[in-house]
Amino acid sequence: MPRDNDAITITTGPIPGSRKTYETGPNGIKVPFREVVLEESANEPPVRLYDTSGPYTDPDTDLNVDKGLPAIRRAWIDARGDTEEYVGRDIRPEDNHRKAGDPNACPEFPSKRKPLRAKSGKNVSQMHYARQGIITPEMEYIAIRENLGLSEFYGDGESFGAEIPERVTAEFVRDEVARGRAIIPNNVNHPETEPMIIGRNFLVKINSNIGNSAVSSSVAEEVEKMVWSTRWGGDTVMDLSTGKDIHNTREWIIRNSPVPIGTVPIYQALEKVDGIAEELTYEIYRDTLIEQCEQGVDYFTIHAGVRLPYIPMTAKRVTGIVSRGGSIMAKWCLAHHQESFLYTHFEDICELMKGYDVSFSLGDGLRPGSLADANDEAQFAELDTLGELTKIAWEHDVQTMIEGPGHVPMHKIKENMDKQLEVCHEAPFYTLGPLTTDTAPGYDHITSAIGAAMIGWYGTAMLFYVTPKEHLGLPNRKDVKDGVITYKIAAHAADLAKGHPAARLWDDALSRSRFDFRWRDQFKLAMDPETAEDFHDQTLPAEGAKVAHFCSMCGPKFCSMQITQEIRDFAEKGMSDMSEKFKTEGSEIYQPKEKVDAESAKLDAAE
Amino acid sequence: MPRDNDAITITTGPIPGSRKTYETGPNGIKVPFREVVLEESANEPPVRLYDTSGPYTDPDTDLNVDKGLPAIRRAWIDARGDTEEYVGRDIRPEDNHRKAGDPNACPEFPSKRKPLRAKSGKNVSQMHYARQGIITPEMEYIAIRENLGLSEFYGDGESFGAEIPERVTAEFVRDEVARGRAIIPNNVNHPETEPMIIGRNFLVKINSNIGNSAVSSSVAEEVEKMVWSTRWGGDTVMDLSTGKDIHNTREWIIRNSPVPIGTVPIYQALEKVDGIAEELTYEIYRDTLIEQCEQGVDYFTIHAGVRLPYIPMTAKRVTGIVSRGGSIMAKWCLAHHQESFLYTHFEDICELMKGYDVSFSLGDGLRPGSLADANDEAQFAELDTLGELTKIAWEHDVQTMIEGPGHVPMHKIKENMDKQLEVCHEAPFYTLGPLTTDTAPGYDHITSAIGAAMIGWYGTAMLFYVTPKEHLGLPNRKDVKDGVITYKIAAHAADLAKGHPAARLWDDALSRSRFDFRWRDQFKLAMDPETAEDFHDQTLPAEGAKVAHFCSMCGPKFCSMQITQEIRDFAEKGMSDMSEKFKTEGSEIYQPKEKVDAESAKLDAAE
Repeated sequence: MPRDNDAITITTGPIPGSRKTYETGPNGIKVPFREVVLEESANEPPVRLYDTSGPYTDPDTDLNVDKGLPAIRRAWIDARGDTEEYVGRDIRPEDNHRKAGDPNACPEFPSKRKPLRAKSGKNVSQMHYARQGIITPEMEYIAIRENLGLSEFYGDGESFGAEIPERVTAEFVRDEVARGRAIIPNNVNHPETEPMIIGRNFLVKINSNIGNSAVSSSVAEEVEKMVWSTRWGGDTVMDLSTGKDIHNTREWIIRNSPVPIGTVPIYQALEKVDGIAEELTYEIYRDTLIEQCEQGVDYFTIHAGVRLPYIPMTAKRVTGIVSRGGSIMAKWCLAHHQESFLYTHFEDICELMKGYDVSFSLGDGLRPGSLADANDEAQFAELDTLGELTKIAWEHDVQTMIEGPGHVPMHKIKENMDKQLEVCHEAPFYTLGPLTTDTAPGYDHITSAIGAAMIGWYGTAMLFYVTPKEHLGLPNRKDVKDGVITYKIAAHAADLAKGHPAARLWDDALSRSRFDFRWRDQFKLAMDPETAEDFHDQTLPAEGAKVAHFCSMCGPKFCSMQITQEIRDFAEKGMSDMSEKFKTEGSEIYQPKEKVDAESAKLDAAE
Repeated sequence: MPRDNDAITITTGPIPGSRKTYETGPNGIKVPFREVVLEESANEPPVRLYDTSGPYTDPDTDLNVDKGLPAIRRAWIDARGDTEEYVGRDIRPEDNHRKAGDPNACPEFPSKRKPLRAKSGKNVSQMHYARQGIITPEMEYIAIRENLGLSEFYGDGESFGAEIPERVTAEFVRDEVARGRAIIPNNVNHPETEPMIIGRNFLVKINSNIGNSAVSSSVAEEVEKMVWSTRWGGDTVMDLSTGKDIHNTREWIIRNSPVPIGTVPIYQALEKVDGIAEELTYEIYRDTLIEQCEQGVDYFTIHAGVRLPYIPMTAKRVTGIVSRGGSIMAKWCLAHHQESFLYTHFEDICELMKGYDVSFSLGDGLRPGSLADANDEAQFAELDTLGELTKIAWEHDVQTMIEGPGHVPMHKIKENMDKQLEVCHEAPFYTLGPLTTDTAPGYDHITSAIGAAMIGWYGTAMLFYVTPKEHLGLPNRKDVKDGVITYKIAAHAADLAKGHPAARLWDDALSRSRFDFRWRDQFKLAMDPETAEDFHDQTLPAEGAKVAHFCSMCGPKFCSMQITQEIRDFAEKGMSDMSEKFKTEGSEIYQPKEKVDAESAKLDAAE
């Protein structure tokens, strides 16, 4: 049900077959879940699923994009008493990549708040609180959210040394953030966020991205894309805009986003110098950081590991430097023959970010752009530097995650994870894919989902999604959904393999509904109920087929599920007929293997 | 360019941007390849790719679906002098699931040959020849095919104990077939096949399936689906039809198929007893095998491992028995309280199959249908039996592969491969996916591609594809293509990770074209050139954009690839400016890490 408001059409209403529910906690905490109520015949409790979609899927919320979402965290922030409102930086024409007097195509967001920042001498990062032993409402919220409000837990898995608890407590959240093993990206100027955590001992998260560019797209599309991708499961959204009206567009996005927003500030800084990398200065960059801190960006990708001495290491690569941020910094370094200003001013950046609680996403500017360049000297030299910078960030209690590749064949993926854990001291890893082959443009959501699921299993905390249009063009609405669902699959497959105790309940509920031919429950429990039902209806559109005890693969007379049910009935009946034999065998339907072998030997002899 | 013939529309003509080429060998061997000629500016030789599409992509071949494809192997078969023509079994109404006098909707194939079978006392299997030390033309053909006609080889990888040679020789093919580590499925009555091999030390193969059913589909669609799926990369095709006209449809498919055809004969046998499993007899089943041996089916899925004593092991499963063949046999076993007739008559089946060189695909009738049931007692009990049957088949020199699951979370996949290698004596493994989560109906090509790529890496020889419609409905044309391309990705990712020496050339050629902005070469080298070009054109349709040195993701002013080129130029220029310094450092652009660290320490000090 799209809703029209000031020419911005926002998709609202529940996911088909699901309802919004909340679990309450202390401090006015209301943690949202997607809840699926099953058919009565199932005789099962409703299934609760993690919900990233914010108020947009709650029909009882009054939405107004001109006002933005409710500032649910503001009271918690104020209660800490360590921030103050101040008169922020003025918006300048160059913030929108305009000349003075040029009209903006995107209007200013109408109801702007004054920005907040830490009072002098204060540090408002969640890591800082965590290290003081303080459990924040954000941490309480996350503990409830990660448990999915479940009482039943089970799961096996191979977690490769992760320490996933059976049940997440707020104290566990605090401890993980204090140790730097997880981050809670939430700028004090983005109080609209529903707190979430990124760390190896929590559910694997996914990021989607949006961004206008010189070639295509409009503001209305970008805001709706954020809503659209969080609707299907995006845990954070990166705004990678590079064209006009960057500032205004971002304001609309942040004010209406229930999930953390990340950016790559060098993109906007470059626009301010008309795209000429050599003309960048730290002052322009720093001013851009302040601009974005005040708006409420939750994490910054900063390519501070692209150091001058590493750049020649890329000269013989098949695909050189493919990171935009990395290539900008490389060009700057070479042009000035100077060390990167991001590296040399890193401590100053930390000072700035802790005043707003913006998290680092230390960018992998030298990530491989092809299988041929995977795990090479340039990539790992940069990773070493990101580890060094992590320690500096942590000295300032600034939350930090590390970006990773890229394009990596399967047998080289684990080395990335192992090295990252080692040299970056278990800071969360945030990888782009990786793509496991370069041969399938048009299908890179799939080439990369293979790598993403694997690296998620090995320990990556968040997966940067890839759409089918990667390397070819700008994703449209369908591409974004395809990318998000594909990455939810990868993340959930990783949770299952790690043995996350809340992961397999979902699969088992769906499997039971499949075996029972509860078609409607299958659709409702699907990651994408719309596509599941649509695909079913393409072959068997009749309403009756949704309660039929068969499906179109085999038709009504030839159904293995139905035959199995008959086997069960038969087995039971057979058992009662043979009750004497059954009793002498110990009344076990499920017989131990040795007994079965003995039984089969008897049958062989009888032949 | 679809071509209309007797109401069957067949897709013909080359893959866009590719041309058909052949490499010749002894015995009139002509091995087809898909060849991509790159733009002149690339200054690279044409790229050769494995080609499963048969004569349909060769514009110089005269195609006539009423006559079928040329019988390219017939001369090789005849030259061996160990087969004879005979008057085959009459077609009966029940072969098409008709009553006497009923008209068939699907006409008989018009130009039928007399069937061949081994002369009395002879064994015509490729395994038999291999064990006699004979290198057949089929083996010669495969050696050329697996090498992709390449002279250059490289690749690293982790092969988990596979023994992939740097270059495949015909003697290597023979040895692998003799040891049972690979099979060449090619019935003497399917001389139209272009020989291919399924084994852990060769390129990973994929299977697609077609099949009419009671609910949907027509004959014309089924034949075109075979052509369609081999066009995009299907290495074998299974005909899983269950409705009317099974016999006639299969004849049309086999006569026109350049790839091996597999079936599950119990499906047709069940039709002959009107779907009542209890009424099946070995005689009906055996007669169906003969019928299909005479038609030219190349491998049979036979669920001979579903033994009576294992059936109770499935009673407490979440999804019971999900294999159609498995559930039919389970029902039969329970109804008669007898051991499976497939198990008890296994040696007789071997005798039959070696007379035609039909390969076993020993079915996993007890495979898990959900993550909850993965790697359970029933599944592994059956696998043990499949290992036992493999040894019996090998005593008859009958080629054998083993089917595997199914639904398995990532951390339980490797156990499947390791156990299969151990208990089935390295016979090739042929798995369905596995799906790594049950939560995404509508996207099961993706949930399973993750598992398929991994198990392919670990050693699976052939991957049974899954389409987006799995669990929901019958795949249409787009679904089939999506499934095939997705599985080609999984198979190729596995080849890369195993370090197959012919695998990475393709990726590197595409990566170079990407870095050079040779857009047309990128499209041509893509697994699916049509989709790649279409996706590009959705954002930048202008013809000029295909030679542009930028793409729509970043626009013309902001391109990391372009910046990298500038870095290269700058680095070169910079180097000449600093030639003195450069010379004293040993004239290396690509400096060792220690030197870079020292350099960076100096830069730090200079700050």
